[in-house]
Amino acid sequence: MNENPDDRPSPEPADISLAEFQQLIRTMYHEKDVARGIDGTFMWLAEEFGELAAALRGGSRTEQQEEFADVLAWLATIANIADIDLTAAIRTKYGAGCPGCGRLVCNCCDADKP
Amino acid sequence: MNENPDDRPSPEPADISLAEFQQLIRTMYHEKDVARGIDGTFMWLAEEFGELAAALRGGSRTEQQEEFADVLAWLATIANIADIDLTAAIRTKYGAGCPGCGRLVCNCCDADKP
Repeated sequence: MNENPDDRPSPEPADISLAEFQQLIRTMYHEKDVARGIDGTFMWLAEEFGELAAALRGGSRTEQQEEFADVLAWLATIANIADIDLTAAIRTKYGAGCPGCGRLVCNCCDADKP
Repeated sequence: MNENPDDRPSPEPADISLAEFQQLIRTMYHEKDVARGIDGTFMWLAEEFGELAAALRGGSRTEQQEEFADVLAWLATIANIADIDLTAAIRTKYGAGCPGCGRLVCNCCDADKP
């Protein structure tokens, strides 16, 4: 293995499943999250969403990475409160290819979403 | 295996890692995503963000699940364009416990974020 002498994360971090991540956030925060509820939690997500936009415009890679993590965490938090399984959500919507054209490599008309 | 006679997703779908999901979205959409760029793609993410809010307020569970999937997909899309590894992002920010208090079960003051 190559050494990684600086403090940047390893380029190939250990995998984490979406289910493990959702459970990690549940373990860390669920009691507080439920007390706050969806509306109050969505405000935190919205704040992180804005911070991600700012980081993408002018932040360092470390800041961008941090804001992606925060948006994902608040998204998982709201999914926990709403009792939505993110893995099932992804499998259902994207597991059979692009929802628009059904292909693994999207072939939708460029003018169409997505 | 139990049969699942209706069209709802199985309650325990096969795991998908965050890295697999990010790669799936890259395979499906990367060529279009790069052409559109971060700014234009963020507009799509913002639209889905609003649709998630609407679904959480008054949508069915199926609609909520779909909107969570869409926000995750557009988030992965932007991460792909910005060359951010979502797994590394999560591991770095949340892999050692709550970023605020360092505990696996958050013990931060309730008034504090998060």
